[in-house]
Amino acid sequence: MKYILPKGFLASGVYCGIKTFKKDLALIYSRAGCKAAGVFTKNKIKAAPLVASKEILKRGKPIRAIIVNSGNANCCTGWYGVRDAKRMINAVCGNLKLKFNNVLVSSTGIIGKRLPIDSIEKATPKLVKLLSEKGLISAAKAIMTTDRKVKVAIERFNIGRKEVIISGMAKGAGMIEPNMGTMLSFIMTDAVIDKDALKLALKEACNRSFNSITIDGDMSTNDTVVLLANGLANNATIKKKTKEYKTFLKALEKVTFKLARSIIEDGEGATKFVTIYVENAKKISDAYKVARAIANSCLVKTSIHGENPNWGRIAATVGSSGIPGIKPKRIEIYLDGICVFKGGKFTMPSKDRFYKIYKRKKVEIAVNLNLGRKEAVIWTCDLSKKYVEINSHYMT
Amino acid sequence: MKYILPKGFLASGVYCGIKTFKKDLALIYSRAGCKAAGVFTKNKIKAAPLVASKEILKRGKPIRAIIVNSGNANCCTGWYGVRDAKRMINAVCGNLKLKFNNVLVSSTGIIGKRLPIDSIEKATPKLVKLLSEKGLISAAKAIMTTDRKVKVAIERFNIGRKEVIISGMAKGAGMIEPNMGTMLSFIMTDAVIDKDALKLALKEACNRSFNSITIDGDMSTNDTVVLLANGLANNATIKKKTKEYKTFLKALEKVTFKLARSIIEDGEGATKFVTIYVENAKKISDAYKVARAIANSCLVKTSIHGENPNWGRIAATVGSSGIPGIKPKRIEIYLDGICVFKGGKFTMPSKDRFYKIYKRKKVEIAVNLNLGRKEAVIWTCDLSKKYVEINSHYMT
Repeated sequence: MKYILPKGFLASGVYCGIKTFKKDLALIYSRAGCKAAGVFTKNKIKAAPLVASKEILKRGKPIRAIIVNSGNANCCTGWYGVRDAKRMINAVCGNLKLKFNNVLVSSTGIIGKRLPIDSIEKATPKLVKLLSEKGLISAAKAIMTTDRKVKVAIERFNIGRKEVIISGMAKGAGMIEPNMGTMLSFIMTDAVIDKDALKLALKEACNRSFNSITIDGDMSTNDTVVLLANGLANNATIKKKTKEYKTFLKALEKVTFKLARSIIEDGEGATKFVTIYVENAKKISDAYKVARAIANSCLVKTSIHGENPNWGRIAATVGSSGIPGIKPKRIEIYLDGICVFKGGKFTMPSKDRFYKIYKRKKVEIAVNLNLGRKEAVIWTCDLSKKYVEINSHYMT
Repeated sequence: MKYILPKGFLASGVYCGIKTFKKDLALIYSRAGCKAAGVFTKNKIKAAPLVASKEILKRGKPIRAIIVNSGNANCCTGWYGVRDAKRMINAVCGNLKLKFNNVLVSSTGIIGKRLPIDSIEKATPKLVKLLSEKGLISAAKAIMTTDRKVKVAIERFNIGRKEVIISGMAKGAGMIEPNMGTMLSFIMTDAVIDKDALKLALKEACNRSFNSITIDGDMSTNDTVVLLANGLANNATIKKKTKEYKTFLKALEKVTFKLARSIIEDGEGATKFVTIYVENAKKISDAYKVARAIANSCLVKTSIHGENPNWGRIAATVGSSGIPGIKPKRIEIYLDGICVFKGGKFTMPSKDRFYKIYKRKKVEIAVNLNLGRKEAVIWTCDLSKKYVEINSHYMT
């Protein structure tokens, strides 16, 4: 029983007919009302279920369930989309005897096509019947789209003498850009935690995980991360700025980081896991700007794919990133720990060392700007022919 | 004799040993001293020849020649690079009896490798000997890197009763981003033109051509456009804000637009020529921001490649472009003239019409923001497996 859910949580996943013979409808349920926090896409074009869930979260009632479908984003669907999102919530309410404001809804998949809402409503009783303490993997499977791997993460730890569990699931392999939610992720915990502390913890954990990954620089219309806490672990309430908060945040970060990492590893067509460090910038925002420019450069990504240590493309990207005060002679570039650029020129490492670069599955690019003391880390993957193939034909 | 040079200009191209059995060294020469204007990369990391040429242009002496090599960018080459760029200039001076400040130098190709300067010096006498009025194509071939096609353009027109010619050559197929020079282009004219008018005309012509194209969003370290005017057409001097200036600018724009367009058509791995219109923005800069976001989205580019009219990805890109005031319900999206998105949702055109989208070689995306009256046009190409293949292995 490796992939357990926190106390009081149940989950399930079924096939309802949106995708072709693959699970496409998931349900998360808590026996007790949950405090909830959410982080959503900054894209100005937002999907109907996202707008509905945001509104419900704002109302602040205890959350008891989340219904999620894959294969259809219910986005750019106008008035019908809004109605369909509400019908999804109502289907759960009817079958679980909950009120409208206790249920969240989420969708992922093709944009601009109406949901087959009748099929979803028809499948909901079965979805409810299958709810189980062992349902995490099943639900995680049902939220996948172009994902090749199921993405789940669990942390167990103590607050005082009480054991607390955080379990999370995520989906996402394309349309990933480090500027917010970036995909779907639902995280559950049985911790007793103050609402402000819950919100802050989710925000902090997202910044150092989901917001620091990029696959192709595109930002989705449906990105959502929701954290539910039902309080059944019975620990003393976790409050902001305490030792217990730090313990909770650390565990939550482990979960979000593991999920974020699994998204990169599952990047569409990805063959390499790339970590980009930018050090000694004047401002944190400058460091992120440079790191993201490198992470989103098609030329850098294809050179990593070809195991071609083309540091010139990295130098060119740093130079054109638009941050102020760049001094070419101060820049140092390290590929897999080997210095290739310093003092304005190629350092000419030995051929033996140079041709080891980019050969492993995990690749590291480090850029020292030598302008200040701030730094940033971004994770990404390479750009392969497979990415082009997947995205030429997938009708998002 | 279709591809002629303006009066008094000669050009040549030879193989000097940088590339493998392909012309890699070009020379442009004018019998009379030229007024010159230049536009250069905004990348903070600049190649040595670019720095040298900028400096020489600033000194304002009449320009008589430009020497250009391909296959090696002479960039990130430290002190050696600066010396090698000067040695290229001096090789021309020695063979043509010119002074240092009469000659410009330019390089394109791999970053970070020293120039084989001895081979260049050795080939220069032959390069000079081959100078010819018919040398435009030969020189244009010698500046190519991953280009598949030679890029030249000619305009003939009258200023008063005198015939004036503008001839241009360009190279570029990758590392193209619409934020300046964007590639190498050398344009020659025999017009008599005031220096201020020459500078302004080059700037205006670049903005509406080279600065409005993008292949992969990467900005090169060597981008250069130089315009030389030797005055041998004997027309009355062209000054700013005159009818003659407009005639000259129009012809120059035809040349730069044709060259820019040929760069897109020759985009690495490109199979489609894409025009992106953004209309009714509040500010011109907003319109360009949206157009460039669409042009640089890997998801949009791969969907065009797959002839898959995935308007949802365009809507998502518009929504995340970061310009203020976007109203999803006001946005209209047209693909190849067919409205697919309006009033916040898919317009459901007939299947017949919908599946015609993106089938032709020339593709049009138009986005109406309905927020103001400003507009922008950007040209780009699709993203293919071939692009990944070329850039995985090419050592820039």
